[in-house]
Amino acid sequence: MASISTQFRNRLTDLAAAGREFLELTRLSSKREQSLAQLCDEMMRQKGEASSIALADQLLQQFALADSEQKLSFFTYLLVEQAADTTEVANAIDAYKIESSLTRLSELRQVLDPPRREVIRTLNTAPNGTLSLVQLRSELLDLVGANPALDVVDKDLSYLLQEWFNRGFLELRQIDWQTPAFILEQLIEYEAVHEIQGWDDLRRRLASDRRCFAFFHPAMPNEPLIFVQVALTQTMATSIQDLLNQPIPEKNETMFRNAIFYSISNCQRGLRGISFGNFLIKQVVEMLAAEIPSINQFVTLSPIPGFNEWLRSSLSDRDYSLLTDNHRTRLESLDLEESHLFSESDKALLREICAIYLVNAKTGQFPCDPVARFHLGNGARLEQINWAADTSDKGMLESCGMLVNYLYDSASVTRNHEAYSNHGEIAMSKTVASLLTAR
Amino acid sequence: MASISTQFRNRLTDLAAAGREFLELTRLSSKREQSLAQLCDEMMRQKGEASSIALADQLLQQFALADSEQKLSFFTYLLVEQAADTTEVANAIDAYKIESSLTRLSELRQVLDPPRREVIRTLNTAPNGTLSLVQLRSELLDLVGANPALDVVDKDLSYLLQEWFNRGFLELRQIDWQTPAFILEQLIEYEAVHEIQGWDDLRRRLASDRRCFAFFHPAMPNEPLIFVQVALTQTMATSIQDLLNQPIPEKNETMFRNAIFYSISNCQRGLRGISFGNFLIKQVVEMLAAEIPSINQFVTLSPIPGFNEWLRSSLSDRDYSLLTDNHRTRLESLDLEESHLFSESDKALLREICAIYLVNAKTGQFPCDPVARFHLGNGARLEQINWAADTSDKGMLESCGMLVNYLYDSASVTRNHEAYSNHGEIAMSKTVASLLTAR
Amino acid sequence: MASISTQFRNRLTDLAAAGREFLELTRLSSKREQSLAQLCDEMMRQKGEASSIALADQLLQQFALADSEQKLSFFTYLLVEQAADTTEVANAIDAYKIESSLTRLSELRQVLDPPRREVIRTLNTAPNGTLSLVQLRSELLDLVGANPALDVVDKDLSYLLQEWFNRGFLELRQIDWQTPAFILEQLIEYEAVHEIQGWDDLRRRLASDRRCFAFFHPAMPNEPLIFVQVALTQTMATSIQDLLNQPIPEKNETMFRNAIFYSISNCQRGLRGISFGNFLIKQVVEMLAAEIPSINQFVTLSPIPGFNEWLRSSLSDRDYSLLTDNHRTRLESLDLEESHLFSESDKALLREICAIYLVNAKTGQFPCDPVARFHLGNGARLEQINWAADTSDKGMLESCGMLVNYLYDSASVTRNHEAYSNHGEIAMSKTVASLLTAR
Amino acid sequence: MASISTQFRNRLTDLAAAGREFLELTRLSSKREQSLAQLCDEMMRQKGEASSIALADQLLQQFALADSEQKLSFFTYLLVEQAADTTEVANAIDAYKIESSLTRLSELRQVLDPPRREVIRTLNTAPNGTLSLVQLRSELLDLVGANPALDVVDKDLSYLLQEWFNRGFLELRQIDWQTPAFILEQLIEYEAVHEIQGWDDLRRRLASDRRCFAFFHPAMPNEPLIFVQVALTQTMATSIQDLLNQPIPEKNETMFRNAIFYSISNCQRGLRGISFGNFLIKQVVEMLAAEIPSINQFVTLSPIPGFNEWLRSSLSDRDYSLLTDNHRTRLESLDLEESHLFSESDKALLREICAIYLVNAKTGQFPCDPVARFHLGNGARLEQINWAADTSDKGMLESCGMLVNYLYDSASVTRNHEAYSNHGEIAMSKTVASLLTAR
Repeated sequence: MASISTQFRNRLTDLAAAGREFLELTRLSSKREQSLAQLCDEMMRQKGEASSIALADQLLQQFALADSEQKLSFFTYLLVEQAADTTEVANAIDAYKIESSLTRLSELRQVLDPPRREVIRTLNTAPNGTLSLVQLRSELLDLVGANPALDVVDKDLSYLLQEWFNRGFLELRQIDWQTPAFILEQLIEYEAVHEIQGWDDLRRRLASDRRCFAFFHPAMPNEPLIFVQVALTQTMATSIQDLLNQPIPEKNETMFRNAIFYSISNCQRGLRGISFGNFLIKQVVEMLAAEIPSINQFVTLSPIPGFNEWLRSSLSDRDYSLLTDNHRTRLESLDLEESHLFSESDKALLREICAIYLVNAKTGQFPCDPVARFHLGNGARLEQINWAADTSDKGMLESCGMLVNYLYDSASVTRNHEAYSNHGEIAMSKTVASLLTAR
Repeated sequence: MASISTQFRNRLTDLAAAGREFLELTRLSSKREQSLAQLCDEMMRQKGEASSIALADQLLQQFALADSEQKLSFFTYLLVEQAADTTEVANAIDAYKIESSLTRLSELRQVLDPPRREVIRTLNTAPNGTLSLVQLRSELLDLVGANPALDVVDKDLSYLLQEWFNRGFLELRQIDWQTPAFILEQLIEYEAVHEIQGWDDLRRRLASDRRCFAFFHPAMPNEPLIFVQVALTQTMATSIQDLLNQPIPEKNETMFRNAIFYSISNCQRGLRGISFGNFLIKQVVEMLAAEIPSINQFVTLSPIPGFNEWLRSSLSDRDYSLLTDNHRTRLESLDLEESHLFSESDKALLREICAIYLVNAKTGQFPCDPVARFHLGNGARLEQINWAADTSDKGMLESCGMLVNYLYDSASVTRNHEAYSNHGEIAMSKTVASLLTAR
Repeated sequence: MASISTQFRNRLTDLAAAGREFLELTRLSSKREQSLAQLCDEMMRQKGEASSIALADQLLQQFALADSEQKLSFFTYLLVEQAADTTEVANAIDAYKIESSLTRLSELRQVLDPPRREVIRTLNTAPNGTLSLVQLRSELLDLVGANPALDVVDKDLSYLLQEWFNRGFLELRQIDWQTPAFILEQLIEYEAVHEIQGWDDLRRRLASDRRCFAFFHPAMPNEPLIFVQVALTQTMATSIQDLLNQPIPEKNETMFRNAIFYSISNCQRGLRGISFGNFLIKQVVEMLAAEIPSINQFVTLSPIPGFNEWLRSSLSDRDYSLLTDNHRTRLESLDLEESHLFSESDKALLREICAIYLVNAKTGQFPCDPVARFHLGNGARLEQINWAADTSDKGMLESCGMLVNYLYDSASVTRNHEAYSNHGEIAMSKTVASLLTAR
Repeated sequence: MASISTQFRNRLTDLAAAGREFLELTRLSSKREQSLAQLCDEMMRQKGEASSIALADQLLQQFALADSEQKLSFFTYLLVEQAADTTEVANAIDAYKIESSLTRLSELRQVLDPPRREVIRTLNTAPNGTLSLVQLRSELLDLVGANPALDVVDKDLSYLLQEWFNRGFLELRQIDWQTPAFILEQLIEYEAVHEIQGWDDLRRRLASDRRCFAFFHPAMPNEPLIFVQVALTQTMATSIQDLLNQPIPEKNETMFRNAIFYSISNCQRGLRGISFGNFLIKQVVEMLAAEIPSINQFVTLSPIPGFNEWLRSSLSDRDYSLLTDNHRTRLESLDLEESHLFSESDKALLREICAIYLVNAKTGQFPCDPVARFHLGNGARLEQINWAADTSDKGMLESCGMLVNYLYDSASVTRNHEAYSNHGEIAMSKTVASLLTAR
């Protein structure tokens, strides 16, 4: 069998040449100081030396101050000049063909490990290197859209972050009023589901009938990765405004029956795609079950972010089959922006259509609603659809003010998860099921 | 171009078939409980679930109690049944040939990532998972000798450990008499260079004129990875027994001039090949320089583990050219086991030959003495060869009681390191150089 | 010499009888539960037992929930029923007269130690007992006004608190944005000099050019005792509003020259009279001098709380001699409430009169202004009187908007302190001195 | 009634004069440096100043290096020159006679508070001041024997230590193999009951079936005050050697039924008379009961330190009535130093006589055996007397090798304590009671 043709080696070289030309241009523009690429070359020359830590630090600080063009230039440099050696790859492929052993396979894998990974590993040795790399990835994600070739760089960066943020390294910490202000401030900033209205609101959310937990990484001890907010209540919660405005119960007055997971927010954009939420919810369920044995129901109160948009596009597309003609007729007589004026039967209609959306509107074999996909994928059950549950502007715009409860029932969560993952089956309560058969 | 031939796919299948047969046999032998492989299959099915953490824990505990055959069986299972999909690999190679882009290269790399890595990542989520994996690798290393095919499994395990023990995640901690007994006990156990004779000896080594530092990993906070012992002295140390038996100076009496690195020991056999020593020495040099400005010399007092053995085989091999006839004649008249009776000229001869050994006896382009290779590779300078420097049995057996000082001079360490790495050049003092030209 | 007459023993008994009568009345009123006094009797019976800790806890919790009358009843019980045994006292006095030795003196002191001290010591063994006793003293202080006999109980309580809050037991902690919210919240609450306007204002006060330090006691680790706020500036600060509204300087931009102590606040009313402020300021001066060597001036920006009131009463009292007729004439033509309209010579007049107030208006041999008394007593120097320095309502009402700088100069602080304590001498700058001689 | 006569004032002055003469002599002898007394005067002049902390530190360090005469001189200075002002005392006594109110009583108490207490309080502000004062008291106790007048100084020092070591300030910490070596080393040093034979023995005593707890004070965080050692066992322990040599049980193999308190040792001689042991035992009982619910018996295995000595003097004193003639006759035929050869009836005799000793041999109304007095005073019950229970030299010499179990039964401990304290009643098991009635 012939060796790998020189043809595609040339093509790769072309791309590299174009990249290098761009690099030259941007390097010329920054005469005063070493370009990021030059710093990086220097750093890799001193790899293993104590001085490489200082260079990594300098590079990351200079990157943080760089403009977009300089950043793009640096990422292009990583893509082109810190790529695997294509000759070595070709040789390893040839060797594998000749002797198709597990050892050759392992060697091929090794030559495919591009030098840019070693760059990233070295950057991680800088003080606060891990946090800086997470922020650097956030910037990279901004540039990938317009520069899809950089996706290759992101693959390497996210691969390493995935290794480093292995669940085994994360610390689960309770967040309360004893937590340093520096961290609490980030909760206010990152809360993505139900905005925290300043420190008084935050304090309410950390009172004795609330719980908040977050994951942290030991290399970033001051930066929460993701946090979840839980309300402990006597009765099931169906309105987020009621929940947030509940008075704090007197101590020992209440026997908590429900743990309502009403918000879960990621804090680090640079860790997109590296998922912690699933573990966070399940570990918090376990901890609360041990701490407060009276709780017998663990349930979310969750947004339906895609509902209104889906409904609008469904109505405008006559061929779309999830809605019946009856649905269309009735919906067309309604003004969704005036949903607070709806009659009981109007509300019932909307709940029914919402159930259709959550269960039957799919992307591939899974629901298209991202929150539904998350909780059902975790093995939760679609429990209840609540009218007038989030009357904020956001809630009205997203889902006519509806919210949904997903139930985490430890007895069935693994079974649900497997049925969902393998067959796309969606677990739901009888109440929700009856909404669907109403049709 | 033709697709990858089916021929080597078949060969891989053969190996796999042999492995599976072995697995069947060992599975049959453990009827009472699930085999490790079955547990592992179950764990991977529940991946991402909270229950997978419990299964990982169970698997690691069961592994720790397993006998050799069961362990070998489990590693074989990882090798054979958790390997990359060869069909996918073949397809990705084909795709890369057709379009030789960085993206295809990246995809090829991805399919080469074998499932056994995901197994290892999942095991790491167990409580104390990281420590258990380090211990598991120690067992794997024991088996690789007789089962070289398992080296492929070790490649994956050591790859992940290398990622996880990135220098950026390690904590440098000072070890002193305030350190928990649990950790001190491990120092006694792991000291590999100059044995610690119980708690009183340890206490001496942690007194006010001594320093000890170790690296720790946040996921194994009670297990030192590597530690270094330093003596602060007024004068250069040339004998380890003198150094260890020095009385503790009165407080404030001494102006320390030298930091003598007299021992550096790895604690985790399962981290073999994942090197921390270089960074440890250099960071301790930086810290001591800042803490005690009067210190102007950072130097080791190091063993020469390969000298006597090399000398013996050099003498028995007439053709070996590093020794002159004059050397041979003089050496043949000496009884190395009676070196305490040597005359001054005998000692001079031995020091000269030791210099030849350290500088000229090579494996490839680097010195064959492992300690020399380590310090010279770090950029240290060969400073001085000391007679009667380690009169313990070990010292006499290894190197006729000689020890060597390597000097860490921050002004030249990077230059030395580069000259050594690129050209095999060895930095040495005039004293050592004159020993070599004496010839 | 005759023994102590029975006469005054009887008188003490009368008071005790009256107290007991009151106790009976209040005991009757709380039929449902044991009175605090009964609990206390029980607790003292079980003194030294583990159960006494539980009883102390119960007593303190019940006290916290008690109404005023019950509290008064409990304090009366402590006064009357937990007093020293007057017979024993009389006997010890007699013995001392017969043999006037140091030993008899020591024995007399011992019998004078009243059982109520042992009650307080036992209460301190409860969980959070120390904090509860500090709060209990706060309540006692409220009652002493109308019940001056309770001052005897307060003497014992404050005596013990004084022992327990010995400077040697206090921890100095820096307060910053890493401090738990629970503690920061108390800063907002307790700031007594320049009110903190919520969390954003607090955050500004903890920025990189500010410092905040507090004393804590190990038995009350979550409760600051006293805290001081310092601004680091390039130039001397003469206006509190300017200081509080300064933009945060860029990092490394500023070379700080001044440390301005602009606020010092006690947090625990129940520790009134147990002074920490002196030590706090001086230790912070030492720490800042070590941390930031460029600072060469440590100065307060302090209120003059008694000025306006003193001025008003001085004007209304014709015979009062500190003001000259010239002063009176000029002052009578001015409207102090319109001080923002004052001419330069009006301002000069007010500064002059303020200097007279601070230096010459005395209570006993010391200044009557409490803030002046505090800082001058510490050995600080009266440095400068600033016009329009605090334009808040509080500042205008207290001192026509003037503030004063007291300078802490380590070279002269001990000398100043001694001259002040022994002779009432007041250290002042030439500027202030010239204001006084202007007259 | 006449005022206090000048006569005894004169006598006090005489003593003071003699003391001052001694002080002059010792002051002359230390020309080079300030005497401790001069330093102390200086420190008190600067009281409240930051500089007084430095002076306190200097004084304590100088004291530690001083010779016996200098120390005696310093204590004499404290006795004589830092005493209460006798004129003020006389006046306050007079005032109290004229108006015998609680307020006058309180004032009298205040003037009796001697300045030396303020000296001690100021010394406590030095770094490690509390520890230094505890050590200083240890030295003072050495001198009191030959200088009983110094007992007055000790009264003041121990009074303040008593306040500062109030139970409410002590921390209970578990001691285990995770504890810093610095603290463990002190356990080896201070164990007073059953000597710890080096680090291996210590390690055994901290294994999974053992517990060790100690009290610490926050101002001396590295110094245990008192510690207790507990063995968890399946069966009641009757021999200390058996207990100490028990193999460590396999994890989870044993269901612990008994907690044997086999050693309790004070660590700070300077805290003599300030008792923590009672609280320590009872809190450990509570903690173990909560941690290991299977334990149903909390019992000591205690020495009988005074038995042999009491027995010897009882035999030599014909009139001593606790022994019958029958006892004497039988005992005279035995050689106590050969007790390992005793017959069963000999052993029974000794146990019987031991019971008589523990229960009936009294000092005042309480047992003369100090260990019995401690545990019975705590409310424990005399449970069992064990033959051949401590076969060490110490055990044979003290009590013919017998040890005794005291039982801490939470249901009866308070009742026992009260019966003992008020009426000298001794709680005992039927077994022990039957030994007594055997007579």
